[in-house]
Order: sequence, then C-alpha cells, then structure tokens
Amino acid sequence: MNSNDSSSSSELKSSLEMQGIKKVLTTQSINPNILKTSYAVRGKVVIRANQIEHELKTNPSAFAFQDIVYCNIGNPQQLKQKPLTFHRNVLSLLTASHWLEDSSKKELLSQMVNRDVLERAERILSNIDSKSTGAYTHSQGYEFVRADVAEFIEKRDGLKKGTIHTERIFLTDGASPGVQLCLKTLIRNEHDGIMIPIPQYPLYSATIDLCGGSQVPYYLEEESGWGLTMPELERAYEAAVKKGQHVRALVIINPGNPTGQVLERSHMEQVIQFCIKKGVVLLADEVYQENNYTNGKKPFYSFNKIAYEMGVEKQLEMISFHSVSKGFTGECGRRGGYFQLGEAVDAAVKEELYKISSVNLCPNADGQIMVDLMVRPPAPGEASYDEYVKERDAILNSLKRRAEKLVKMLNSLEGVSCQPVEGAMYAFPQITLPEKAIHKAKELGMAPDLMYVLELLEQTGICVVPGSGFQQKPGTHHFRTTILPSEEQIEGVVDRMANFHAKFMKQYK
Amino acid sequence: MNSNDSSSSSELKSSLEMQGIKKVLTTQSINPNILKTSYAVRGKVVIRANQIEHELKTNPSAFAFQDIVYCNIGNPQQLKQKPLTFHRNVLSLLTASHWLEDSSKKELLSQMVNRDVLERAERILSNIDSKSTGAYTHSQGYEFVRADVAEFIEKRDGLKKGTIHTERIFLTDGASPGVQLCLKTLIRNEHDGIMIPIPQYPLYSATIDLCGGSQVPYYLEEESGWGLTMPELERAYEAAVKKGQHVRALVIINPGNPTGQVLERSHMEQVIQFCIKKGVVLLADEVYQENNYTNGKKPFYSFNKIAYEMGVEKQLEMISFHSVSKGFTGECGRRGGYFQLGEAVDAAVKEELYKISSVNLCPNADGQIMVDLMVRPPAPGEASYDEYVKERDAILNSLKRRAEKLVKMLNSLEGVSCQPVEGAMYAFPQITLPEKAIHKAKELGMAPDLMYVLELLEQTGICVVPGSGFQQKPGTHHFRTTILPSEEQIEGVVDRMANFHAKFMKQYK
Repeated sequence: MNSNDSSSSSELKSSLEMQGIKKVLTTQSINPNILKTSYAVRGKVVIRANQIEHELKTNPSAFAFQDIVYCNIGNPQQLKQKPLTFHRNVLSLLTASHWLEDSSKKELLSQMVNRDVLERAERILSNIDSKSTGAYTHSQGYEFVRADVAEFIEKRDGLKKGTIHTERIFLTDGASPGVQLCLKTLIRNEHDGIMIPIPQYPLYSATIDLCGGSQVPYYLEEESGWGLTMPELERAYEAAVKKGQHVRALVIINPGNPTGQVLERSHMEQVIQFCIKKGVVLLADEVYQENNYTNGKKPFYSFNKIAYEMGVEKQLEMISFHSVSKGFTGECGRRGGYFQLGEAVDAAVKEELYKISSVNLCPNADGQIMVDLMVRPPAPGEASYDEYVKERDAILNSLKRRAEKLVKMLNSLEGVSCQPVEGAMYAFPQITLPEKAIHKAKELGMAPDLMYVLELLEQTGICVVPGSGFQQKPGTHHFRTTILPSEEQIEGVVDRMANFHAKFMKQYK
Repeated sequence: MNSNDSSSSSELKSSLEMQGIKKVLTTQSINPNILKTSYAVRGKVVIRANQIEHELKTNPSAFAFQDIVYCNIGNPQQLKQKPLTFHRNVLSLLTASHWLEDSSKKELLSQMVNRDVLERAERILSNIDSKSTGAYTHSQGYEFVRADVAEFIEKRDGLKKGTIHTERIFLTDGASPGVQLCLKTLIRNEHDGIMIPIPQYPLYSATIDLCGGSQVPYYLEEESGWGLTMPELERAYEAAVKKGQHVRALVIINPGNPTGQVLERSHMEQVIQFCIKKGVVLLADEVYQENNYTNGKKPFYSFNKIAYEMGVEKQLEMISFHSVSKGFTGECGRRGGYFQLGEAVDAAVKEELYKISSVNLCPNADGQIMVDLMVRPPAPGEASYDEYVKERDAILNSLKRRAEKLVKMLNSLEGVSCQPVEGAMYAFPQITLPEKAIHKAKELGMAPDLMYVLELLEQTGICVVPGSGFQQKPGTHHFRTTILPSEEQIEGVVDRMANFHAKFMKQYK
C-alpha cells in the first residue's frame, strides 16, 4: 500500500476539530424515506415505558405502580402465556441433537419427554441433510417444512392433495419480513399505490413509506363492527386513480388488527372479484386465523379457500401470510412465518422473490421448525396429543374470556365505545375526549389520543398505543390495547384503566 | 357491505379467460431494482446443484458421483463441522426452560450437561423479564446481550470498561440484514455511491442495486495477495466524483471474502484517514475475525481498535459487523449477528436505525443468545472450559490445514494460480482458460468461468461459484471455493478438482 499522505493521526484529529468538520451521516443526509416512516407500536409511548421500567428497577416507589403492563404489542409470552410443551421439547432436542446420538443421554431424555417428542425430533432430523439446525437452509426454507405447510393449507381449505405446491411457500423470519419483501417487489415509485385499511397495522404504512410508494387508505366502518364495504373500496380506488396513482395491491387483515373483526364469506367473495376486475394483487394478512372468539358464528375462511371455491385461483394474484407469533402458539421471539403465493402469481416473479430471499441467505432454522410444529401438531393417538389439546384450548378459551371482560369494561366507561373483539388479540375503543383535553393536547403539540395514552402510562403503568399510530377517521380518537394480560392480571388492568379514565374525564371536564 | 356487482364467479372466470387478462405482477411490472439485482452465491450454479441432488435421490447412478459437495457457501455445519457443545446445551435448556422449574427434570439434566451449562442458562433467564425466549425482545435485541457484546469489544480492543455503549449495539438476524439496513439508510438515489472491493461478497453489490444506489468499485491487487492500495482507493473515489456521484461509504471486508487476505495495520490506518478526509462512512465487515491462519504473523485488528488508538474515534463514522455464522461457531442457521455504531455516528441517526429495526419487531431470540455465548464463552476454571478450548482449536487448526492443502493443489494445476488463504473460509484461484473454452462459452452466451464451474459441477458434484459472481478484473477468470469440506472429504475434493481440471484443459487445448 502506497500513500503520499503523511499527516499523522494526531494532526488529522486536531485539524478536523479546528475545521469543525460536520458529520457525514445526519438526519438531513440519510434516505428521506427512512425519516418519513413512522412505527407507533414500538414508538414514543414504548420508549417512555422502557424508561419508567428502568427507573422502577432502582427506585421501586417512584410511581404509583410496581411494573409496566405491556399492552402495546401482541406478545403473549411477555404476559406469561406458557409455550406449548410439545413444541418446545422437540425444538430443544433438535438444538442439542448430539444427545440423540448418545444412548445413555437418550435414556435420560425418555424420562423427561413423551415418546412422540423423540420420534418427532428424529423425523425432522431425517429431513435435514446436514443433521444440524446450525447450517443455512434453502433460501425459501427447509423443503420438508414447506411440504408440511402445503399439506396444512390443503387440509385447512378442503383441497385435494397436491393442489398447493411446495415451491410456492416461502418461509420467513416472522410474517413481517415476508410482507416487506412483497411490498418492495410491488412498489416501483411514488405513483404505485397500496390500498390499506384504516385503522391498519403500521407495518403496512411503514413499509410503503420505506419503499417510497403511496398509501391508498380505505376506511373500515366502525359502527358496523369495523365492516368492509364495497363502495368504500371503490371510492378509495377511484381517488387514487384520480391522483394519477397505479393501484398495485389491496391489503386485507383478517381477523383485523387493530380492529378485531372477522370477515364474512360473502364480503371475501366481493373482495376477490374486486381484485380480479381491477387488476390488483391481494395481500391477505391471516396471521390471526386461529384467534376467533365467535363460537363458530363467524368462522375464519382463508382467501385461498374462497378463491378455489369460486374457481378463480388462476385469476386471483394473491399472497397470504401466516406466523408462529400469534394464534395459541405465541412464539414471537422465534421469528417464524411463511407466505404462500397463489397459483396465479407469475412463476418468473416467484424466481425473483427467491433471488431476493437468498441475499439474506435463509430464515432462521428454529423459526422454521416452529412453523413445522404449528402446521403439524401432535395427532390424535400420539402421546402428546391430549396435553397439546388441553394447552391449546386453555389458551384460546382464556383469550376469549379476557376479550369479553375488557370490551365490557370499556363500554361501561363514560364516552367510550368499543366494538366486539371477534378475533385477533386487540380491542380498539373509541374515546370521546373532552374539549379541554383536546385543547391541552394541541398546546402540547401532540395528538389528543397520544396525550391520553401517555397519562394512562404515567399513572397506571399500562402501556397501550394511541389510535393515531394506526390512523383513524379525522376527528375520532382511539387506542389499541391487547387482550393479553393474564387472567390474574386482567382484573387489575381493567380496574386501573377504569379508575384512570374516570379521573381523566373529571380533570378535563 | 353493499355492491352493485352481481356477476357470479363463474361468469367472472370465463369472461377473464375470454379476454385473455394479463397478469398484474410480471417481471416487466415489478420494481426494476429487483430485476437488476444479482446474487451468485445462491444463483444459477446452486439451482442446478439442487436439481442434481434431487435426481440423485431417485437415480443414484445418474451421475459419476454420489452426492453434491457444496463449496459455494461458507456453511460449515452443512459440511459436518460439529457445533460447540456448551453453546448448544445452553440454548437447548433455554428452549425447554420449563425443565429448569421441575426438580426431577433438573436432576436428570445435571447428569447430561456440565454444571456451568445449568448456571449459564439460569443467568440468561434471570436477564429475560418474560423468562421465555418466545417473547419479542427489545427491537435492538436483549439489553444484556448488547452489554456482553460491548464488554467483548472492549476486551478484544484493549479499551477501558464503559467505553462502548450498549445502545450502540444492534443485534441482527445474521450480519446480512444489518448491512442491508445500513445501506438502505445511506442510499438516497442513484447518485449515492458505495465503494466496494472487487472481488467482493455479492451481498454488497446486490443490496446497493436493490436500494437503487451506485456501486463504486475499487480493485484489490491480486499479485500482492489481494492487497488494498491507497492510489486505487483514490482513483475509484475520483472516478465516482467525476461521474457526479456522492461517495457515501467505503466497504472493507477483513479478512477478505472471497479473497482471504488479512489487512495490515498500517493499511488500516490509511483507510481510516481516507474515510475521515473524504467524509465517507466506513462499513467494516469483520465477520471472519476469528478465521486467521497466519500463525500470528498478521493478527486481526478491528477498525474500532485502530480508530481508538489513533484517537480518531470521534471523527471516524464507522459501522462494524459480526456474526455467529463464521469463525469456529459456524451457526449459520441461527441467524445471529450484530453491528456496532462507532462513537462518531450521530445519535439521531441511531434513533432512525432503531425505528426501522422495530418495523421487523426484533431479531430472533435464539440467534441473540448464540451471539451472547460467542462473546462470552466458558471462562477458565468453569466446567466446560477445557472442552470449549479443545473444540475451538480443533476446528481452527483443521481449517488451516484444509486451506493449505487446497491452495497447494490449486497452485499445482496448469494455468491456475491461487493467493494464500490468510483468513476467512475461501480460496479464490485465477484460472487461465484456453481460447477454445472462452470461445465456446461465448457461443453458449455465458461467462467463461460460469461454463467452467458448471462443467465442474456436472462431472464431479463439486459446487463452487464463478468469479463473475463476485466481479473481477476484466479478462481474468476465477472461482470461489470454500475450504470447508471435512478432513475426510477434502482429499477427494482436491483429487476430483485436479482430475476435472486436467481433462478440461485437454479438451479445450
């Protein structure tokens, strides 16, 4: 290496200091799409909650509560939901797979786990060429997991074996990176619009902004339980076209996040027709498909199923998303998920998605295994089956009770109305705030619901997300809370919320 | 939901078919940056290798070999490298953490693992509020892991305790998503240039293309063992400026990938001065920092260490990357890694990186734990220490032997020259191809080294990557092979490569 540059490092340092050299990377000089992006679920309120949590560690009496209850995010195991025993045992054996090669250790293991746990771990290992979850997998994920996912979809949707092809399944680190990959592929520039529900899960608005595309909002009808209406979809579409936008995709979240509604079949058929007629890709976020509290009154149907039953699977360009983070699995930390490309999605586009997936090498292997366990749980007759069913039903029944309790309490409060939680993990109540509170928020330069939510946090330790983070009809105010505090906690949360609300309303009357 | 649309789905289907409706998503209509991106490490050659592997499963005698040896990717455990026992045991206990709450199971465990494995698992659990790796973590990763990483960097670089701050560490799903996040933040449009070595690891070229920026290539000097020279850095910088580009960052891969060289300290100092003078962010890819085969002749230094020793840590805007996939950990499937923001990186930019990280919620928890175990292995005196040292040294010594064997063989071949492998996991030999071979490749419309590599695959089952996938000086041809086939395999690989090469040269003479 030759260089004519003879300045010593201390000279360099002082000359820079004297020149007052400015930083290269500043918020003025980075990619402006990054600045534009906002993501409320882990934004301002959560950052403050983290600060309070730190303060409580050194000074437990600094606040009127002992700990933060994180109702800002669907993170069941943070709020004490127990992981499924079978799933964790299998994953654990695969991590320490050298135990299975040692007969004395295997003997000890057989005293610790059910027989089918060992069998399952061995089945999975037999499908992994390297015999180790420490090797990179195929960039779309293990082939055997994708085959199990395809079989799961066929069974769920009543399709013939062989209908769903393994190569149309992409395993991902949770549903979010899959959504981001697909949006990145769809969006070319600011003239490309993506239809998103309002209120929506901010992954969508954030990713559209990050990719430099345009949000095309369509409003859900709060009065009819956050219903989807065709005239509103048409209005939103036409409004975008008038602005010169090219509408490329329609996002549907079913069951809804943050709104908790379950779509009716007839509406799904109309949505499918809309997408085909307009030439719009359907992005079906179905991560809450197991979280249904309607006692069979409004069953979950996948868009895939409906498309096949309508006979339009070759016309509807659909991508659907699923995850191990929700349902009763609740394994958020694993980052496991998948997306399914519908039959109509062009094979050459599939190859492009594969190529881009491969830049990240592969999704994490443990998350993939968790997907496999989710789509292929213990079967009737297997040793772990009863335990699995018991754990599953306990979680789902408890979530249902907690949802009902929360909604009932919220609807009993002055100026609060909350639609029923039919599915997913959230309540999204509307709060009619007193004029004085709105005025004060304006003075503070913050959204009124953000002020409400920050006061709730400071006074009760309950961390929820302001409705403005999900977008909402102008002039309305909401917040999103999960239904996840445990049965022991939920009474306390309900009481603290109700007391806070009464005080807040009195203060600003 | 109201709709005036009364067409039945079968009518819809047939009308679409009659109209010959075109697909919405086609390679003509997707984001053109996606099309432009190429990623050779898992590209054409690997896709063909996968096909052959499938064919071999149904027809084991279809080829002159029984299996594919994947030398295309640094994936040690795929080629039988054993995972570190301590690390896997701890991770396994954390996955089945309910075992630790059951005294009879804990008793059985104490017969299966060393005492410090149990202690370590309990230390980690005590740092996780939810007591479960199934909950989302902080979006930058567990705070205790980041603290352990900060301490690791301080010790490695001889810095005082407290020099490196926890909030400047971002845990990631492997190094790749960290690199992608940083490039996405740096690149605003096609006028933003990123300096990359040629040859380079295609993560960089792919991500720059994907973000719509410009590659600013600087050539490494093959004759001097892939040396970095200041005049070449200056030339590349000036060439970009002349094209109207704004050079935003300089990527250095040390030890080099695919080129295997280890940077000298004096060159690192010059690079740092260059970055500060030009106002360019240094992206230091240091994922191979443990893979050094120079017997102390050319030790690895981190750019962080050199910047502190030069006293310019407040001037050098540096981001460095590390991973659990390489070194002797080799846990590619975990997707664990981190990046460290140097002190000079603006705090407001750090907040933007946090915000964008949070859109993906968090890196996978198991990968984070593996990072923790990598930076905090068993200490002298702990029960697992000797086993850990033995496993570590066996892996590194074996890699060194295999590197030497491969390089020696390659240099013995007609028309092949290979620089020494000082570090990392790859050899990158230059092959002087006969005119007739180059002519035939042109007829086939493919790069000559791609043709060479495809023939190698078809005849021997050895899968390597053509030099064109990493870029190379025009008119030269190379391929990259890992040094990873096991000691039992490497002789066979060496023989098959040598025989193939002799035949190839004869055929095209």
